[in-house]
Amino acid sequence: MTYCVGLKLRRGLVLMSDTRTNAGVDNISTFKKLFVWESPGERSVTILTAGNLATTQSVISILDQHTKDQDAESARTILTASSMFTVAQLIGAVLRDVIARHSQETVVKAECPFSATLIVGGQVKGEEPRLFLIYPEGNFAEAAEDTPYFQTGETKYGRPILVRAFDPDMSFEDAAKLLMVSFDSTIKANLSVGLPLDMHIYRTGSLRTGICRRITPDDSYFEMISTSWGESLRQAVAALPPYMLD
Amino acid sequence: MTYCVGLKLRRGLVLMSDTRTNAGVDNISTFKKLFVWESPGERSVTILTAGNLATTQSVISILDQHTKDQDAESARTILTASSMFTVAQLIGAVLRDVIARHSQETVVKAECPFSATLIVGGQVKGEEPRLFLIYPEGNFAEAAEDTPYFQTGETKYGRPILVRAFDPDMSFEDAAKLLMVSFDSTIKANLSVGLPLDMHIYRTGSLRTGICRRITPDDSYFEMISTSWGESLRQAVAALPPYMLD
Repeated sequence: MTYCVGLKLRRGLVLMSDTRTNAGVDNISTFKKLFVWESPGERSVTILTAGNLATTQSVISILDQHTKDQDAESARTILTASSMFTVAQLIGAVLRDVIARHSQETVVKAECPFSATLIVGGQVKGEEPRLFLIYPEGNFAEAAEDTPYFQTGETKYGRPILVRAFDPDMSFEDAAKLLMVSFDSTIKANLSVGLPLDMHIYRTGSLRTGICRRITPDDSYFEMISTSWGESLRQAVAALPPYMLD
Repeated sequence: MTYCVGLKLRRGLVLMSDTRTNAGVDNISTFKKLFVWESPGERSVTILTAGNLATTQSVISILDQHTKDQDAESARTILTASSMFTVAQLIGAVLRDVIARHSQETVVKAECPFSATLIVGGQVKGEEPRLFLIYPEGNFAEAAEDTPYFQTGETKYGRPILVRAFDPDMSFEDAAKLLMVSFDSTIKANLSVGLPLDMHIYRTGSLRTGICRRITPDDSYFEMISTSWGESLRQAVAALPPYMLD
């Protein structure tokens, strides 16, 4: 499994992923699932990957290779496309093609073993920052006012706190805290989601890579969250009046 | 979907289920999923059902019919079996048979559309209260010291709070409160889990049906929990120190 979240705040984007991959509980590894491209002063694009590792690595390699090729055919890359919408289209097309090739089928189904889902966030000069969820079929949804965040992978354990405490006006510091609470609940419940976590904080208008952090198992802040949150929850329940039986 | 929880406390058992059934989001109904049998002074048995409605209703009807039949063959019923272990065996056998009959196959698979999972809790005179999770295959697990509760159905949203705040020494009032918080998080996240909720609180040694309550959409306590819990979570997150970016 995997857990990835992309938040769209008024002040920018906060994207976080875990790094655990597994083929059964007896075969786990650490792989990066957060990838950032930039053209400083012009754009920043981040991709969070969830799904089959061969698929997602292939997609990332192809997208990256295209940005480095000089020939005409690949002229439109995630570093040259005219808008984030076109960036999402390019990524979706590569994702669909890779899955189709790996599965040797003409019809791509979301349930196929080579499937993957991507969160893409970024800003191209002249636009506001945008956030997309790209499906295995290559099509995508864009985050909007009502639900300005996307989750992929093991989304359920960490969702209630996100739904309740997310606020598009929150600071980057509070957003990072909220994500760590959400990831901690998920990591405690599902062995196939694990530390370290990768985070990219992109500030609206900066048009370059923002703050990138890796939260490792010995990160003292994450350790504090992990310990304190259980106690916070217990206290929050304790503070509510008990159900009256009589 | 469905959400059912059985808690084994030192002072007794607390069992709760939702009542929503659905065949697509455009076809939802309310059905009881909590069933209690008693032989006052001798035993109390509660079943929580999750899964295919035709299967679970059939299982409950057969088990109930057996308690009323007078012939020799059905002499061992959930009201006469010598222990809760035997009660669980009887229920498991009926569940497996019903699924096999409905699917017209000799091999029963958990993924089959007629599948169902049951939580069974109760006490037979001479034993401590016991709590079981019965699988579609008819076999079962028993709750023990380390994990004295079982969930079925849509378990993920409501699990983190249960894992963190459950305490086998807690009062019935606090257990009912904890379950309502857990159910509220689930109901808010999954349309196929819904009010009203049914609850049976069984006191160790009473050997008869305990307090049975139906929590309806206009229940003022549940409404208070539902409103306050979001605010409690927001405050709990706010009380933690923010992540430092510099």
